[in-house]
Amino acid sequence: MFNFKLLIEYKGTGYSGWQRQRRQKTVQGEIEKALKKIFGRQINLIGSGRTDTGVHALGQVANFSLETGLPKTKIQKALNFYLPNDIRIKKIDFAKIHFHSRFAAKSRIYRYTIIQEYSPFLKDEAYYYPGKLDLERMKKAAIFLLGRHDFSSFQNRGSRRKHAIISLQGLKIKKGYFNPGRCKAIMIEVEANAFLYRLVRNLVGLLLEVGRGKIKPEAAKYILKKKDRCHSPSPAPAHGLYLLKVKY
Amino acid sequence: MFNFKLLIEYKGTGYSGWQRQRRQKTVQGEIEKALKKIFGRQINLIGSGRTDTGVHALGQVANFSLETGLPKTKIQKALNFYLPNDIRIKKIDFAKIHFHSRFAAKSRIYRYTIIQEYSPFLKDEAYYYPGKLDLERMKKAAIFLLGRHDFSSFQNRGSRRKHAIISLQGLKIKKGYFNPGRCKAIMIEVEANAFLYRLVRNLVGLLLEVGRGKIKPEAAKYILKKKDRCHSPSPAPAHGLYLLKVKY
Repeated sequence: MFNFKLLIEYKGTGYSGWQRQRRQKTVQGEIEKALKKIFGRQINLIGSGRTDTGVHALGQVANFSLETGLPKTKIQKALNFYLPNDIRIKKIDFAKIHFHSRFAAKSRIYRYTIIQEYSPFLKDEAYYYPGKLDLERMKKAAIFLLGRHDFSSFQNRGSRRKHAIISLQGLKIKKGYFNPGRCKAIMIEVEANAFLYRLVRNLVGLLLEVGRGKIKPEAAKYILKKKDRCHSPSPAPAHGLYLLKVKY
Repeated sequence: MFNFKLLIEYKGTGYSGWQRQRRQKTVQGEIEKALKKIFGRQINLIGSGRTDTGVHALGQVANFSLETGLPKTKIQKALNFYLPNDIRIKKIDFAKIHFHSRFAAKSRIYRYTIIQEYSPFLKDEAYYYPGKLDLERMKKAAIFLLGRHDFSSFQNRGSRRKHAIISLQGLKIKKGYFNPGRCKAIMIEVEANAFLYRLVRNLVGLLLEVGRGKIKPEAAKYILKKKDRCHSPSPAPAHGLYLLKVKY
């Protein structure tokens, strides 16, 4: 029996998220379909975490167990052959037999990309926000959010966890550029040991309100304390979000 | 009478090129349609040059003459409102009344983008070529092509010019990265005073053959001398090509 660990990249635009669903096209569903074509039977794929409709991944991880004589490079090639061209298996490795891509994860990093100039090439790949954003204010707000807190104020209903206490290990806000138009971009990277439903998009929603001057950086502290979603701003749209990396 | 100069960005994937056509969706056609919606009549748009089906532009230039009281920022907003979201007017300026975006152009720069790792985000935005490419060899070949030559060997039928003598002012080959997956990329930038039909894609086709070791850099010199298209390698695909800039 082998436990195969997949590193997966996908453009989430055409999918109803990661998680297999009966009537919707999903990323997990497509990969399981491809596995079925190769191995002739349903194989259960375990993902490191769900991503929402329209959310992308540059480093999603998933694993599946199977008894097979097929070399891993052959499996990778066959998967990429059967998969649609907006999903790509970047790597296949052998993992320990009890490796579980969700439970073994130490932390995950998400990146949210905001472009400040519109680009015809990035309508599904970044959130276009033309207004002025004060990055210094946003960085100030981020400091209140870092660390171990109850993030109830930033989770939507539907989290898989029983409580909302997680450790926010990183919340970086940096300037960059997005090809091919070299649009000015702002990247917000969030690292945590666990994620709540819509956490990143809710955090970015708050940071945007701070950045545009609607609320003070200190509001982050007060909203956090409320432990109630209805006190925080609305979430940033899905199409700016990328699952960047899962750390084990 | 005003002469408006437009700076235009477009993702060429869904279009049969720049040039207006009766039954095909084209970029010029879409902009003229939007102008008609604003001004109530057919306005003739003059483009700096045609681009092929699937070819993109980061800096196409076009102009049109019109008697109107509408401020240019209003025209820009209205155009972007009516245009599909893969075409964008980046800027509108007043040009001199006799300015002609094609005839006044001193040079144009095209960029061809090759990615060496596959990306689900870039299937229409860059040419995926996974094989090894020797950039030093390609740069050697480029030297033979620079300068004033008859480029008959690199033009397909359909050029608007009567002869194929043009000045290749720049042919730069450089490494870069393409977001969001930070794929390794090779950019080939071509600057010339005039362009022949398929010139850039034919030049890139040759450089790729040199880069992968199929032909010697010196072959560039011999193929150039033949002045016959049938001696040069096949053109690189359209979707890696961008009209980057028009210089006046």
